[in-house]
Amino acid sequence: MTDLELSTLHDISRLADQLPVSDQTAAAAAAARQATLTKPPGSLGRLEEIAAFMAGWQGDANPKIDTAQAIVFAGNHGICAQGVNPYPQSVTAQMTQNFERGGAAINQLANLADAKLSVVALDLDRPTADFTAGPAMSDDDCLAAVRKGMSAVDQSADILLLGEMGIGNSTVAAALAHAVFGGAPADWVGRGTGADDAILETKRAVVAAGVARHGAGDGPALLAALGGREQAAICGAVLAARAARIPVLLDGFICTAAVAPLFKIDPRLLDHCLIGHLSAEAGHRRLADALGRRPLLDLDMRLGEGTGAALALTVVRAALACHNGMATFAEAGVADG
Amino acid sequence: MTDLELSTLHDISRLADQLPVSDQTAAAAAAARQATLTKPPGSLGRLEEIAAFMAGWQGDANPKIDTAQAIVFAGNHGICAQGVNPYPQSVTAQMTQNFERGGAAINQLANLADAKLSVVALDLDRPTADFTAGPAMSDDDCLAAVRKGMSAVDQSADILLLGEMGIGNSTVAAALAHAVFGGAPADWVGRGTGADDAILETKRAVVAAGVARHGAGDGPALLAALGGREQAAICGAVLAARAARIPVLLDGFICTAAVAPLFKIDPRLLDHCLIGHLSAEAGHRRLADALGRRPLLDLDMRLGEGTGAALALTVVRAALACHNGMATFAEAGVADG
Repeated sequence: MTDLELSTLHDISRLADQLPVSDQTAAAAAAARQATLTKPPGSLGRLEEIAAFMAGWQGDANPKIDTAQAIVFAGNHGICAQGVNPYPQSVTAQMTQNFERGGAAINQLANLADAKLSVVALDLDRPTADFTAGPAMSDDDCLAAVRKGMSAVDQSADILLLGEMGIGNSTVAAALAHAVFGGAPADWVGRGTGADDAILETKRAVVAAGVARHGAGDGPALLAALGGREQAAICGAVLAARAARIPVLLDGFICTAAVAPLFKIDPRLLDHCLIGHLSAEAGHRRLADALGRRPLLDLDMRLGEGTGAALALTVVRAALACHNGMATFAEAGVADG
Repeated sequence: MTDLELSTLHDISRLADQLPVSDQTAAAAAAARQATLTKPPGSLGRLEEIAAFMAGWQGDANPKIDTAQAIVFAGNHGICAQGVNPYPQSVTAQMTQNFERGGAAINQLANLADAKLSVVALDLDRPTADFTAGPAMSDDDCLAAVRKGMSAVDQSADILLLGEMGIGNSTVAAALAHAVFGGAPADWVGRGTGADDAILETKRAVVAAGVARHGAGDGPALLAALGGREQAAICGAVLAARAARIPVLLDGFICTAAVAPLFKIDPRLLDHCLIGHLSAEAGHRRLADALGRRPLLDLDMRLGEGTGAALALTVVRAALACHNGMATFAEAGVADG
């Protein structure tokens, strides 16, 4: 495993050249097997691509998922002082408790997809600072959250699903996306959990102010200045998964925006990541396009918590079930054209 | 249960006024429950719609899936004499055997989604007639296939998945779609299992000739003249499911085109049907639009066999898992805004 000891937050920038890459021999062997299976070539579409993707990261032409881990990171945000969300910040802790008791959507979907759910609440009683007035986190505070994300990853998992919860964090996500990918605030700001027109206007103004203040920073600086603890932890988990060659399913808009600073550092840092679900939140399509990825599902969901990643896990399981379980033309005695 | 005794093929036309309809009280109760669950209103997107849809057909505000049945109907087609497919017709029987032995994609996906798979081969050694020279089936032959489709349905199932296998049947599907929905042959004809440009041209010419000859018929007449036995059986299964209030997941292009004659008779005959997957086969998007339905998944698959329906079953299971398993705001002690 690659050494992920980070002395400072900016050490993340050196990782792109050190982390393991996809095993192209295993991926090619998986693609070759697909061509022998009893179906017209290519007819399983993205399931065939997923099988090769999983083979590459697991370094095995017959990839498997014995253990799937889902992690929901939760954080609170100083930007809520600006009135960017109709819900009180106390809902973050209430929903975290709901996750722990099994009552949330992610509990049902993780159970259904047979993923082991971890819930990591990050200093909920100590929100980050308002990023319109200064950096949301100090570098050390951000690094601590990155490390918590790293240490939450089960190194023995075959796939990692990431999700988040945090009142106000669709504003944080929009700020990160706007800072990394440009455009206008309105390209990235959506209604989140239910902003009315006035709140939407506030969100846009806040994102514009935050990016005006901090937007010139590099990836690690943007993460600290505009992100929250759950965004930093998601980045840490993505890096720890990569070091262990564990492929990652990102959730929707907020989870995808959380890794935008890693993309800014080096797009290769996300080579092991797929996006599970295209959020109904405005801006996710543009964000997915900017990352060069097409989400696996598009079911108008906009809930977060890792729900889109959990649903997408069943698609990955389907890909591997076909890949490993189907008969070849030769085995089945079927003419192959 | 509604009487589905059909004395003649054209008796199908009288069913639209007799078959049961969705229970709007149960659907409304399901929608009301969704509003109490611990998530922003509407944030589960299509999963919320699916829960209400299932509630309406099952007549229960808490719909369930204890038993899911998947049926693959297989048939052979006289139109193959025109050279519309690069594979020999013997592949239909070989693949049917592959289904029975568990080696095909549908076996893996039905297992994964916990659907009980039924395989129904329809007179594979007696292909239908070439529809460019006359009707593919007599009315009696077509009615016999409709009845086989009806009797294949497990009346105790909570949901029915439909799929098909039949060398040459993407041409049959294009002919049915063109006859029912107009446009040009090129709007509906695609490469199927792997047509090259010359075969594609042949397919278009054959579809044009078939529709020129038979296109003026009503729904039942089109089914007999242009359809195949597996298309007729799919129509029969859709009707039998409806009589038993069993919701249906259609598969991709060919399965959707199979029910186009029912849509022509009366669009209400398909009120209990969803489309599982948007096929990569040219024409399916147009066909889904014509039926007023958005497929649940879009994974570039084009295999048939019910594979898209089986994958979509996991989405329906996810919808019901959230609907029945989530805590309400009151139960969880979460502030609801």
